[in-house]
Amino acid sequence: MLVLSSPSGAGKTTISRALLERDDNLTMSVSATTRPMRPGEVDGKDYYFVDEAKFNQMIADGELLEHANVFGNFYGTPRKPVEDALGDGKDILFDIDWQGTQQLAANDSTRDDLVSVFILPPNTAELENRLRTRAQDPEEVVQKRMSKAADEMSHYREYGYVIVNDKIDASVEQVQTILTAERTRIGRQMGLHEFVQELRESD
Amino acid sequence: MLVLSSPSGAGKTTISRALLERDDNLTMSVSATTRPMRPGEVDGKDYYFVDEAKFNQMIADGELLEHANVFGNFYGTPRKPVEDALGDGKDILFDIDWQGTQQLAANDSTRDDLVSVFILPPNTAELENRLRTRAQDPEEVVQKRMSKAADEMSHYREYGYVIVNDKIDASVEQVQTILTAERTRIGRQMGLHEFVQELRESD
Repeated sequence: MLVLSSPSGAGKTTISRALLERDDNLTMSVSATTRPMRPGEVDGKDYYFVDEAKFNQMIADGELLEHANVFGNFYGTPRKPVEDALGDGKDILFDIDWQGTQQLAANDSTRDDLVSVFILPPNTAELENRLRTRAQDPEEVVQKRMSKAADEMSHYREYGYVIVNDKIDASVEQVQTILTAERTRIGRQMGLHEFVQELRESD
Repeated sequence: MLVLSSPSGAGKTTISRALLERDDNLTMSVSATTRPMRPGEVDGKDYYFVDEAKFNQMIADGELLEHANVFGNFYGTPRKPVEDALGDGKDILFDIDWQGTQQLAANDSTRDDLVSVFILPPNTAELENRLRTRAQDPEEVVQKRMSKAADEMSHYREYGYVIVNDKIDASVEQVQTILTAERTRIGRQMGLHEFVQELRESD
């Protein structure tokens, strides 16, 4: 479970897309949300778009691994696709914020699987520029997003890794390196115990 | 602090040499030992060869980060070169066994810096073959080393990462990947806190 978090505008979405393209074993977790669909978005691909009643039902039924309220909209990670992918030996990429990450880190069933990476912008000018040039949102939302960016960044210490996204290619490479290294983590290698047992017994 | 441990004969020395050659920021920790020098070994390069009185004095003076007794010979890691290298922003490679690794992991001053990798042989035939063809040692030592190999392997779970050394090149690549990824660990990036503080304040 590879979590990427960042302040909005730090380049996380671009990095995620590049990772998914080059790593065949990596699949994306699609969040459920109550926020309105934006032009160009596809239900079931960008998000599962649900209303608040349905979202609350999903929480009540234990169908969400984590959920958070951001600017009055709810976001959550459906449990089943994650369990299916992990069961198939796939890795999963999560584009979630600090609230969701905290919940995955606090949950016994997900804590040990978690690899969390925080992506920082190289400087504030870049960040502000990117937040301003997203055409679809009104100034009020841009202001809120900038304040949320500062809030999000206040949680970077809760992550395992941090990357300053200066050049996209280098950042993609860094996340890929983290992912590859974490695959050799002792708890992540299937059949390792039996293998070592066999080695030891024939000595 | 990158620790490589393995049963004798699993290819650790070859992997270490290749890593040191390709990674300019990596330097080797040279252990002190009371075991006799072998033909071809160089004092201060392969080991610091000392007698038991001197070794005990080093322990008493707190000059060793860890030390262990293996087959009646003492081995230990001098503290000062490690602190100097870390102070210079270098990474250090340690070729030590599970006893030394346990001590570094239990020590407050080294625990957080530690990245530990256990290297396993691909199969027992390979391992036995390598242990037998080391020409310089009598059969009795080979037997002891095989028993120590099984003992060493019983501690693989105490390590952060494990690599099965099937092909040397791939194993070197894997350790390098772990090292590169661990350099982006949140606790390892100098000036990160100040950088984020600056980003947040200008928002």
